[in-house]
Amino acid sequence: MTAPLPSAAAALLPALKFDRDGLVAAVAQQHDTGEVLMLAWMNRDAVTQTLATGRVCYWSRSRQSLWRKGETSGQAQRLVELRVDCDGDTVLLLVDQTGSACHTGTRSCFFRAVRGGRLERIAEPIVDPRTLYGAEA
Amino acid sequence: MTAPLPSAAAALLPALKFDRDGLVAAVAQQHDTGEVLMLAWMNRDAVTQTLATGRVCYWSRSRQSLWRKGETSGQAQRLVELRVDCDGDTVLLLVDQTGSACHTGTRSCFFRAVRGGRLERIAEPIVDPRTLYGAEA
Repeated sequence: MTAPLPSAAAALLPALKFDRDGLVAAVAQQHDTGEVLMLAWMNRDAVTQTLATGRVCYWSRSRQSLWRKGETSGQAQRLVELRVDCDGDTVLLLVDQTGSACHTGTRSCFFRAVRGGRLERIAEPIVDPRTLYGAEA
Repeated sequence: MTAPLPSAAAALLPALKFDRDGLVAAVAQQHDTGEVLMLAWMNRDAVTQTLATGRVCYWSRSRQSLWRKGETSGQAQRLVELRVDCDGDTVLLLVDQTGSACHTGTRSCFFRAVRGGRLERIAEPIVDPRTLYGAEA
């Protein structure tokens, strides 16, 4: 991605429909492999920061604060492209993910699948979560 | 997909965390190309029907009713695999999409992107929406 332009947020924000909590859903997808990594949420500030810095910033609903992905864990997401859906309540983030997107240490948060009538783990951690968050994990 | 097993919903539902409206987010991805098609919502019944029939069924928040994708438009989604994220509030549906996922007639709902500081249309309709919904469109 080239340097984000200051006008990007101004162009995007009017197309977004934030919900009653002031959020849009954000799906993060690895830009080259197509792997869906995670779903999180963004408020206006998170969208603006993401476009301004080229690093993905979400809104943490549990902590009620901006969540600069990778700030603690180092597992950051570089923004490659931001897309918007037809009704403006969801964005698709094409990203370049460093390491694991999931706090459990798996590459993707979607590491369980229904197969053969059971819920199976289909991916193992690629990073020890204790190395991501220290004693917090 | 082989015939869905009756036990699939029983295995999956305890792993899901439905929100205050009784919903989980559902990201639909074309199983072979990796294209992210849309984001919608599912309640318990939609999850159960999807697993039982192998055809994706959502919950329409605007109509407050089950939404058997393609029932009106013919643009159905065959379920290939259902995955669950780490905290159980989002599912990833690997699907085989017939035609367009979007009510506007584009293949994906994410047909706009921020490029060069502007919001640009990056995909055109592949189906005339008037042929999908008749006079409703």
